[in-house]
Amino acid sequence: MGITAAVAGASGYAGGEVLRILAGHPGFEIGALTAGSNAGTDLGAHQPHLRSLRGRVLAETTPEKLAGHDVVFLALPHGQSGPIAERLGGDVLVVDCGADHRLADAADWEHFYGSPHAGTWPYGLPELPGQREILRGTRRIAVPGCYPTSVTLALFPAFQAGLAEPDVVVVAASGTSGAGRALKPHLLGSEVMGSVTAYGVGGGHRHTPEMVQNLSAVAGEPVTVSFTPTLAPMSRGILATCTAKAKPGVTAAALREAYQEAYTGEPFVGLLPEGQWPATSMTLGANSALVQVALDERAGRVVVVAAIDNLTKGTAGGAVQSANLALGLPEELGLTTIGVAP
Amino acid sequence: MGITAAVAGASGYAGGEVLRILAGHPGFEIGALTAGSNAGTDLGAHQPHLRSLRGRVLAETTPEKLAGHDVVFLALPHGQSGPIAERLGGDVLVVDCGADHRLADAADWEHFYGSPHAGTWPYGLPELPGQREILRGTRRIAVPGCYPTSVTLALFPAFQAGLAEPDVVVVAASGTSGAGRALKPHLLGSEVMGSVTAYGVGGGHRHTPEMVQNLSAVAGEPVTVSFTPTLAPMSRGILATCTAKAKPGVTAAALREAYQEAYTGEPFVGLLPEGQWPATSMTLGANSALVQVALDERAGRVVVVAAIDNLTKGTAGGAVQSANLALGLPEELGLTTIGVAP
Amino acid sequence: MGITAAVAGASGYAGGEVLRILAGHPGFEIGALTAGSNAGTDLGAHQPHLRSLRGRVLAETTPEKLAGHDVVFLALPHGQSGPIAERLGGDVLVVDCGADHRLADAADWEHFYGSPHAGTWPYGLPELPGQREILRGTRRIAVPGCYPTSVTLALFPAFQAGLAEPDVVVVAASGTSGAGRALKPHLLGSEVMGSVTAYGVGGGHRHTPEMVQNLSAVAGEPVTVSFTPTLAPMSRGILATCTAKAKPGVTAAALREAYQEAYTGEPFVGLLPEGQWPATSMTLGANSALVQVALDERAGRVVVVAAIDNLTKGTAGGAVQSANLALGLPEELGLTTIGVAP
Amino acid sequence: MGITAAVAGASGYAGGEVLRILAGHPGFEIGALTAGSNAGTDLGAHQPHLRSLRGRVLAETTPEKLAGHDVVFLALPHGQSGPIAERLGGDVLVVDCGADHRLADAADWEHFYGSPHAGTWPYGLPELPGQREILRGTRRIAVPGCYPTSVTLALFPAFQAGLAEPDVVVVAASGTSGAGRALKPHLLGSEVMGSVTAYGVGGGHRHTPEMVQNLSAVAGEPVTVSFTPTLAPMSRGILATCTAKAKPGVTAAALREAYQEAYTGEPFVGLLPEGQWPATSMTLGANSALVQVALDERAGRVVVVAAIDNLTKGTAGGAVQSANLALGLPEELGLTTIGVAP
Repeated sequence: MGITAAVAGASGYAGGEVLRILAGHPGFEIGALTAGSNAGTDLGAHQPHLRSLRGRVLAETTPEKLAGHDVVFLALPHGQSGPIAERLGGDVLVVDCGADHRLADAADWEHFYGSPHAGTWPYGLPELPGQREILRGTRRIAVPGCYPTSVTLALFPAFQAGLAEPDVVVVAASGTSGAGRALKPHLLGSEVMGSVTAYGVGGGHRHTPEMVQNLSAVAGEPVTVSFTPTLAPMSRGILATCTAKAKPGVTAAALREAYQEAYTGEPFVGLLPEGQWPATSMTLGANSALVQVALDERAGRVVVVAAIDNLTKGTAGGAVQSANLALGLPEELGLTTIGVAP
Repeated sequence: MGITAAVAGASGYAGGEVLRILAGHPGFEIGALTAGSNAGTDLGAHQPHLRSLRGRVLAETTPEKLAGHDVVFLALPHGQSGPIAERLGGDVLVVDCGADHRLADAADWEHFYGSPHAGTWPYGLPELPGQREILRGTRRIAVPGCYPTSVTLALFPAFQAGLAEPDVVVVAASGTSGAGRALKPHLLGSEVMGSVTAYGVGGGHRHTPEMVQNLSAVAGEPVTVSFTPTLAPMSRGILATCTAKAKPGVTAAALREAYQEAYTGEPFVGLLPEGQWPATSMTLGANSALVQVALDERAGRVVVVAAIDNLTKGTAGGAVQSANLALGLPEELGLTTIGVAP
Repeated sequence: MGITAAVAGASGYAGGEVLRILAGHPGFEIGALTAGSNAGTDLGAHQPHLRSLRGRVLAETTPEKLAGHDVVFLALPHGQSGPIAERLGGDVLVVDCGADHRLADAADWEHFYGSPHAGTWPYGLPELPGQREILRGTRRIAVPGCYPTSVTLALFPAFQAGLAEPDVVVVAASGTSGAGRALKPHLLGSEVMGSVTAYGVGGGHRHTPEMVQNLSAVAGEPVTVSFTPTLAPMSRGILATCTAKAKPGVTAAALREAYQEAYTGEPFVGLLPEGQWPATSMTLGANSALVQVALDERAGRVVVVAAIDNLTKGTAGGAVQSANLALGLPEELGLTTIGVAP
Repeated sequence: MGITAAVAGASGYAGGEVLRILAGHPGFEIGALTAGSNAGTDLGAHQPHLRSLRGRVLAETTPEKLAGHDVVFLALPHGQSGPIAERLGGDVLVVDCGADHRLADAADWEHFYGSPHAGTWPYGLPELPGQREILRGTRRIAVPGCYPTSVTLALFPAFQAGLAEPDVVVVAASGTSGAGRALKPHLLGSEVMGSVTAYGVGGGHRHTPEMVQNLSAVAGEPVTVSFTPTLAPMSRGILATCTAKAKPGVTAAALREAYQEAYTGEPFVGLLPEGQWPATSMTLGANSALVQVALDERAGRVVVVAAIDNLTKGTAGGAVQSANLALGLPEELGLTTIGVAP
């Protein structure tokens, strides 16, 4: 029989995407599905696209309901993963799609989230240097945030190759599903359609310290990140535009070579041919990141643009990719790289 | 009788927006309407929303057809305005919505456009220091580009007050109407909807030297601009996110004060209250720019976000605003500041 | 001094649209603005596009706050208008954008709304035969529903001319603002974008009896209406496709003539030239309805398509148009017919 | 080795969707890819989401290039399939995604398409009574049109059970990809976004005779269809609202039972639970149709709404489903039923 997987937060967008992937994954058997306020209702009322799972009733999210599975995917509001994970045995693979266990620095956590730090787990971004090995066999995975996934993939090759100064500007556009199924006025269709808006400007977004952490580790020196997220009129997708001053003497050729080297052989990251720029639609529903890089000679800057689907490579796909590694399955198993377009 | 106005390029998006504004403007009487390949057809086939102008047949764009009006609005592909303007008398107000006469530096023009420079006209951005006076009574107006309008309004107060270092990063999202009614695959609805994409990355966008020109003039020193435009799934609107290192010692209060000072009394630019961020939908169809500013203390950066409607304040509204000044009309005449939302 | 106008429900979409129109209307002076749960907050937080009204604090919706104005526009949830109107003097013009006073049949009201009927007011659709005269001088106006506005304008000329059988099928697509600013999951941008969905199928929609009432009155016999509303991924707009069997012997020419006759001279309704079909974008922000009609010879059916902006001609514009009539102002005053496109 | 498949029209939307499905199908090996004006270019320039097929150069669409494969999928403009199919051997399975071989009545073809009829092939809608058997082993398949797929699935159970009068009204909303990658002004993003528009009104749409053909065959009597297609601001999806007078005495229960009977066991068609209505987003990228049915007692009408993805179940998915049957493969092979949502 397959590996059994429970999903907590199954009525939300991240939980639904985990289920979409698991339902097409040959290695997993879907077990308990849990929810918060939607407990007791039919999954089909919330995820009508998951036809094969219609009729499944959502249980309440408790350690008891989640226990007894080989893998537990947690797609919960931040702050809820820690207590649940503690009650699940150390032999259970716990994959936290929330923020709780991503940051190494407890002070950073407390500054941005205003609550006690729950600890740090192995970081689920296999493309980072050395990270694939860390993930093999682990039983705890902190799935990266959607923005940090795109920004880290966009920039780490430049820092790994020593080509960029450690002062980064990122402006990213995200689809609305990144905010979850929260009933807030600014997420209503009437407000969102036909409009791009900024939010969390001036360094306040909680994903900033995660970007700083990742890029500083690769650069070997502290990297500052000015991050401005914007909301775009689409359900899914992140397009991250990232720039840093080029180190003296950097050439366009050296830059391109660094990215080719970093991504050759990576199953889920693609460096686009010169002249083709990423669009989020190229990755819709796919566990892939598409990257393009340029040297702006006039401004003396490295400019990198990355596109991902925030729910797939940015959340649930990345989660399953890391879970595959942790469980000794082929990394690509169950993760189609084919997006839906147009 | 009113002032007579001709519009060249009336079947395009910019020309249509000029007409929408003129049709509601008490000071103008609409005269000849001309087009290129659409000459001979009914305006109503191309601009069905302009109900009061149905039945008008488009003439061919020639100096003869445009002559004999008090004002001529040119909404033409770049390179076409110069020859036509030369054939219109010096007493005719010629308002060029195209790029031909914006740049002061002929070498910049030739580098970015690959054709001979047509000369430099008074720049139609009345909000720039001293510019309103230059525009009064002029008979030639170079309407700013849509991106440079948003970026210049976003950043010039910071440079005027000496608060920002002269190394700017801009990432802007634009609606598709900014590309005009061009029949190109990447502008098809099927490609555009549900997707944000980058283009013109690495310093190649033609609006970059215009930003450099504007900001350098205000800063009193050369400003470099790294500009990345992106295409968002909406018809109208630009959201420009602009950032530069703060000069040493700059405080959030000083920053805010500089913007309050710059924009108090400006009829078409609004500094939003603290905590509210611009959305392009706040400006749909309105000749207004909405701006918000923040100091990112961690990254040491000034971050400014500006929203405009690319066709209104970014093109046709700005054109009429400057024309009002040139003709001695009240600057706000015929320019409603009320956007259509949601 | 102008006529003073109060607006109840000013933080919602309908109330905001009433304010957008009033702010550009030369005959009105805006007085009290009231709200329900948003009372005490700044209008600018909810309607950031209404720049000239920033700083206005929303009062609570009570008869006391609304009293003392010449006109009161009510944009309230159904059931709330009646009690308030009773407390406003008979000399005050009360314009009810809600459903409470539209239906003549109390049983219909109770069947569809499940509450006691509040009475019937003059119906604010001046284009209906004889209706303009009824509205002149009235002090109570029931603004039509958005769907019934589009469907009645689409079909009444065919019934007036006796060309259609009294068995109508209507399928209409609406933008999401028709549902108001309600915090419901199916109205979230993530759910709405990229998707068309049906709702209220099978005769259950509350706007159905209003259509039946209007069309039966014109036809002089009972008309049945099968109405299916759908939700489309746009903020504004209704496109109503309406069809009925053609009476024996009806020709395409007779059909077109009936519509020409009905709409010649109507300032806000346009019959499009043959071959051009309505798009909701042709009416965005405009108080206009665009109509096209065809005879399907194979199926023996009259097919009429009408486009309106649900918030303008479908609600607030229609309200002001009728209020102009009631107050003896020119019917078109303050109602631009120019939509914002593209 | 697998079955080899060539795809003609690989740079278009339909061809791209065939490739998306084949790339994830365990039974097929992708062979020649051909195009018209895009011949000689890299597939990756047109279909950047198909990462595993990057680098494939498009050949010219000729019988020679397509010969030598077990299966040939034709995704060509109408009129081009016939001549090519004639040159491919009778042992090759030819799957025509175009219209050429759908209609049985040559006069209908000539009336609607204005060219000689190319003949009639087995119709690729396995859900139709008896059709699955016809498709097994065939070497020629006419893939149904996208609208007829949705409308036939919506209505045939009612006609099969004798519950509906043979006079049908259909209003359907389609995403823009249904029009293909044609460079036409009305398909530009700027025109499409924020707008629903009608087209082909009055019986002129070429898919009408196909609906008539399918429903008449099931009803056993001539069925008239009044069909109005509309264009909605989304890339993919069809929502078809279909109605016919109920036969005397029909009950809601009888209606529901007819649909349950028709669709129980069908892998790709789902009757939604009572109270849940189809949204196109429930089917995005999935080879599924979701259907709901109601009896409007007041209007005496059966109302059925169906949602499909026009490119998947409406074209390429339906094509592969039928090809599976023709080749003796499991009908569901390679056709995930999981849509991408939100």
